Amino acid sequence: MNARRSILAGLLGRGVGPSLTPELHEREAARQGLRYVYKTVDLDDGQLDPRHLRELLRSAVELGFDGLNVTHPIKQAMVPLVDRVSSEVAAIGALNTVVVSDGLTTGHNSDVTGFTAAFLDGLPDADLGEVLLLGAGGAGTAVAHALAALGVRRLSVADPDVERVRALVRSLDRTPHQVQVDGVAPHDVPAALAHVAGLVNASPIGMTGHPGAPVDTSALPPGLWVADIVYRPLFTALLRDAHARGCRTLSGAGMAVHQAADTFELITGRPAHRADMFGDFDELVAAETGGDRHTPEAPAPGSPTRK
Amino acid sequence: MNARRSILAGLLGRGVGPSLTPELHEREAARQGLRYVYKTVDLDDGQLDPRHLRELLRSAVELGFDGLNVTHPIKQAMVPLVDRVSSEVAAIGALNTVVVSDGLTTGHNSDVTGFTAAFLDGLPDADLGEVLLLGAGGAGTAVAHALAALGVRRLSVADPDVERVRALVRSLDRTPHQVQVDGVAPHDVPAALAHVAGLVNASPIGMTGHPGAPVDTSALPPGLWVADIVYRPLFTALLRDAHARGCRTLSGAGMAVHQAADTFELITGRPAHRADMFGDFDELVAAETGGDRHTPEAPAPGSPTRK
Repeated sequence: MNARRSILAGLLGRGVGPSLTPELHEREAARQGLRYVYKTVDLDDGQLDPRHLRELLRSAVELGFDGLNVTHPIKQAMVPLVDRVSSEVAAIGALNTVVVSDGLTTGHNSDVTGFTAAFLDGLPDADLGEVLLLGAGGAGTAVAHALAALGVRRLSVADPDVERVRALVRSLDRTPHQVQVDGVAPHDVPAALAHVAGLVNASPIGMTGHPGAPVDTSALPPGLWVADIVYRPLFTALLRDAHARGCRTLSGAGMAVHQAADTFELITGRPAHRADMFGDFDELVAAETGGDRHTPEAPAPGSPTRK
Repeated sequence: MNARRSILAGLLGRGVGPSLTPELHEREAARQGLRYVYKTVDLDDGQLDPRHLRELLRSAVELGFDGLNVTHPIKQAMVPLVDRVSSEVAAIGALNTVVVSDGLTTGHNSDVTGFTAAFLDGLPDADLGEVLLLGAGGAGTAVAHALAALGVRRLSVADPDVERVRALVRSLDRTPHQVQVDGVAPHDVPAALAHVAGLVNASPIGMTGHPGAPVDTSALPPGLWVADIVYRPLFTALLRDAHARGCRTLSGAGMAVHQAADTFELITGRPAHRADMFGDFDELVAAETGGDRHTPEAPAPGSPTRK
């Protein structure tokens, strides 16, 4: 029998039970006629220490896992535990994907490639002169690297934790990207909004459980483009208000689907049908929200698909 | 998402790579529309110590395995590592299946139930007065318990390792079965053959890599029924010669398929389509042997199917 007769993947992290990623992977695999199982592994506090993670990763390899997604709060902790990392992971210091091949583990970051693909889909001709990024955590750092690679010339980063901003700046210094990065104090965000070309929310504000908008949306200039990486809910207060004010918007759907597709491709070595995966995503989100995902005010902003 | 959205199983043991069980499980699951992956975990000598097995089992539970098959050489070593065992496992001291439910592991022995079902299929009206069993290892012990439960009145057990015979006898003493068990020295096997009603080979002799027959087949009385649990090759020298001498025979196919079906049912909680699994088994064996599985002398002895 071929060792790749069937494919086993999983997601390690805290609170991963409701993730849509397993269903996205398994539906795509079924479309391709693959036997594929994607398991969620919900880690509690006692399971987060590096020794335990090392043992868990070793066992996952031994038990035949072909790949893993890794999410909050262990994206950084996993980096020293894998055998090899991609150049992006080396620069960022965080991974979200581990591919197992011949017993060796390699770390990748499909948050970066996922955001990049989503951006090129949804805002292909956006002004990349200056962008304001909210949030310098793991997701924010991945987005910053994607924006830098897309050609953003000046990136302003706002996060209440100044040390996280400094770490983000250092991580960009380790890349060849020609981007000027500055920290922005929270009270300077309104002023920054007046002159940047685009705004990306990579903070948790707007997620289910973190209601509200991460900025005063009454100050959003209509010419601004606005992206949110939150996808639950898909249409955050920020995106709804931005849409209402005439801004071009990009929801978190694109990043969610493209990172799943990128990881699927890394694990299986086969191209994903991205348009079908967007269809699955829409269906899963609709099922979660009882079909009521479009408010009357904001019909489906920023949910592009590509083939 | 339902935690049982997709099902993950595996096989732990040494040299498990060529096992047909993964393919039997996955094909049956596909027929039932289940997302199901069954991985083989080939353990080398360094992975066989109980501490490592304990860690591996704990990780398997943590990583979302719904069940495991366990085979040579760890069927005994796994017994103290699971949370609960069936009464058969308690008596035999060996398991071949671990079912995970709500984080708890339960040991079962589908070698016993598999042999029982195969015997009822293929030799339903066989004389159970006295049976000679060759081999008192893990498989032989499972077969002995199955035979005792089927109603064998006297069981003679031959194994070069006298201590294994003693352990088998003690294990039957822990059951309510009314069976008289005796050890038979190797040089007394020909004499035993002359008066027993049936012969079961649970020794490795006849397997690929262990050529030959476990007894002098020229001494097989035509009225004897003969069962072999070896299934690779399906038609061992013992079965071929027994068939040629007019004995009723039962190949290892039945036990192989029924144990797989029983384990599938334990793990999934759904009935298996056994007739279809027999079809799969035949196809897989034919593919392995280049389609030349029936010798001209012995067309398909003892390969019954049931619904």
